[in-house]
Amino acid sequence: MLNKDFQIGIVGLGLIGGSIARSLSQQGYEIFADDPDDQALEIAFKDKVINGRLEDIDLEKEIILIFTLPVLSFSKELEKNKEIISRASLVSDCLSVKKDLNETISSKGVDTSNFVLSHPVAGSEKSGFNNSASNLFVNKISVLTKLPETSSKAYEICSEMWEAMGASTIELSLEDHDDFFASTSHLPHLISFCLISAVSKMKSGKANLLSGGGLKDFTRIASSDPKMWEDIFISNKENILDSLNSFKTEIKDLENLIENSDAKKINDYIKKAKIFRDSLI
Amino acid sequence: MLNKDFQIGIVGLGLIGGSIARSLSQQGYEIFADDPDDQALEIAFKDKVINGRLEDIDLEKEIILIFTLPVLSFSKELEKNKEIISRASLVSDCLSVKKDLNETISSKGVDTSNFVLSHPVAGSEKSGFNNSASNLFVNKISVLTKLPETSSKAYEICSEMWEAMGASTIELSLEDHDDFFASTSHLPHLISFCLISAVSKMKSGKANLLSGGGLKDFTRIASSDPKMWEDIFISNKENILDSLNSFKTEIKDLENLIENSDAKKINDYIKKAKIFRDSLI
Repeated sequence: MLNKDFQIGIVGLGLIGGSIARSLSQQGYEIFADDPDDQALEIAFKDKVINGRLEDIDLEKEIILIFTLPVLSFSKELEKNKEIISRASLVSDCLSVKKDLNETISSKGVDTSNFVLSHPVAGSEKSGFNNSASNLFVNKISVLTKLPETSSKAYEICSEMWEAMGASTIELSLEDHDDFFASTSHLPHLISFCLISAVSKMKSGKANLLSGGGLKDFTRIASSDPKMWEDIFISNKENILDSLNSFKTEIKDLENLIENSDAKKINDYIKKAKIFRDSLI
Repeated sequence: MLNKDFQIGIVGLGLIGGSIARSLSQQGYEIFADDPDDQALEIAFKDKVINGRLEDIDLEKEIILIFTLPVLSFSKELEKNKEIISRASLVSDCLSVKKDLNETISSKGVDTSNFVLSHPVAGSEKSGFNNSASNLFVNKISVLTKLPETSSKAYEICSEMWEAMGASTIELSLEDHDDFFASTSHLPHLISFCLISAVSKMKSGKANLLSGGGLKDFTRIASSDPKMWEDIFISNKENILDSLNSFKTEIKDLENLIENSDAKKINDYIKKAKIFRDSLI
C-alpha cells in the first residue's frame, strides 16, 4: 500500500499527468503540478484535482515526482527541478522511449538511486488534461524499468503507486523496453499515419462517406498528438527502423503470394496471423 | 417501404446472411436459407430466424434472393439457384469484390435486369451465424452497384431492403467499388496480417502481456476469417497491389524523414494525417 503521506509532484498535466492527478487526488494524496498551460492548471486547481503548483511542495515531507511531458522537454525540466529530485523518495516518468531519457539523466550527474522509469500501457489518441480520467490506468499494465543505481525501496514505491491507480506492473530492461514498444506501439502508429496519408490521396475521395468500416477503427491511432510522435520517432529511431524492416519483409512475402494468386499459402499466412492475434485477447 | 409480401431467400447463413435473416424476420418477412452448416440452419429454424430451406420458397410469390457466401463459392450456387433467380424481383449479394462476381454472372447468361450488387459496410472480425445480430446494419452504409441491365425497379427494391434494415445506401460503379474497397478495407487487412506476423516473430515474446495498448485495437481486423480474405486478396488482386504500392511510397517517405531525424517534416506529415483522420469522424 502506498504511504498516504506522500506528496505527488507532476511535471506536465496532460492526458497522463492529469489522469495520475485525478486518480491519486481522489484517494486523498496531495498533488502539486506544473504545466506550460496555465489554464489547465487553474481548472485542475478549481476542480480540486491539484492542491497547488510544484513550488508549493513541502521539501521537508515525503515526495514522489513524476515527469509526464514530451521526451524532448525532459532535459530542461530535470535541470529546473534538481532540488525536488534530490529530496524525493521516488522520481519517475511516463515517457515512451527510455534510452534518451537515461542519457539525459546520466549527463546531469544526479543521484539516480530514487529513479524508476514507468510506462503505463494506457495511451489514447486523445491528448490533453481535458481528456484525462481517474480510471485511465485501471486494469492496465505499467512497465517499470530500473536504472543501474535504482534502490529496491524506490522500485517498491513505484509499484505501489501504480497499484494504487489500479494498474499492475511488470519489469523490462531499458533496451527491451525500447525494442518492445518500437514493434508493438511505435510501428503501428507509423503504419497508421502512412495508410491515412495514402487514402487521403485517393482519386475517388469518397472516404468520408464510407469510412464506417475497417478504416476508421484501424486508423484511430492516426489521430494521436503530432508533437509526441515526432519526439518518439526521433528518439527511438534505430529500434523503429529495425521493426519497420521486419514489417516490410512481411509485406513483401504476402505481396508475392497475392501476385502469384497462391490461395493455399495466402490462407496459411492469414490463419497464422489470426491465431497469434486471437492469443492476444 | 419494402413490400411485406416478399419472401427473402438467403444463400449462406453466416455473419452477414444471419444478420439479414434476424433483422427481416423480426419485421415479419418470411426467410428461407441455405448453408453448408446444417447445425446453423437448425438453430436458426428453432429460433424462428428462418422459416425453412431455400427449397421451401414459394415460386409463385414475390422473392428477393441474396447471396452471402465466400466469393469463390458463388458460381456453383448461382447455377444451382437459376430457377429462383429467374422468378426473383431482386437478386443481390454482400460480397466484397464485384469484378469476378460480374464476370461469373455474365458467363452464366442469366437475365440480369433484377440484379443489384450490395456491399454493407458493416463487417466485423467475427464471423459465422453465432455472431450475427439483427442490428448489424443499423446506421451503416450499404454500397449499391448496378449491372448494365439493372432495372430501376430492382434498384428501388434493393434500396428499400437496406433501409428496412436501418442502413442508408449510396451508389458506386463496379470499378469504383473495387478500387475504393481495395484502399479502405482490403489494404488495412493486408497490413494488419503483416504487422501481426512481424510481431509474432519478435525475440522478446512478451506481446501477450503488453498488448493492451495500441497493438490489440490496431490489429483487431487480423482476427478475420482466413477463407474470406484469401478469396478477396485473389479476386481484387490488381486494385490491392496498386493500393499497396501507394502505401509503400508513403512508408518510404516517412522512413526517410525518420532516418534524417527531420523533426519539422515528421511533424507536418503526422499533422496532415491526423487532420484527414479526424475528418473521418
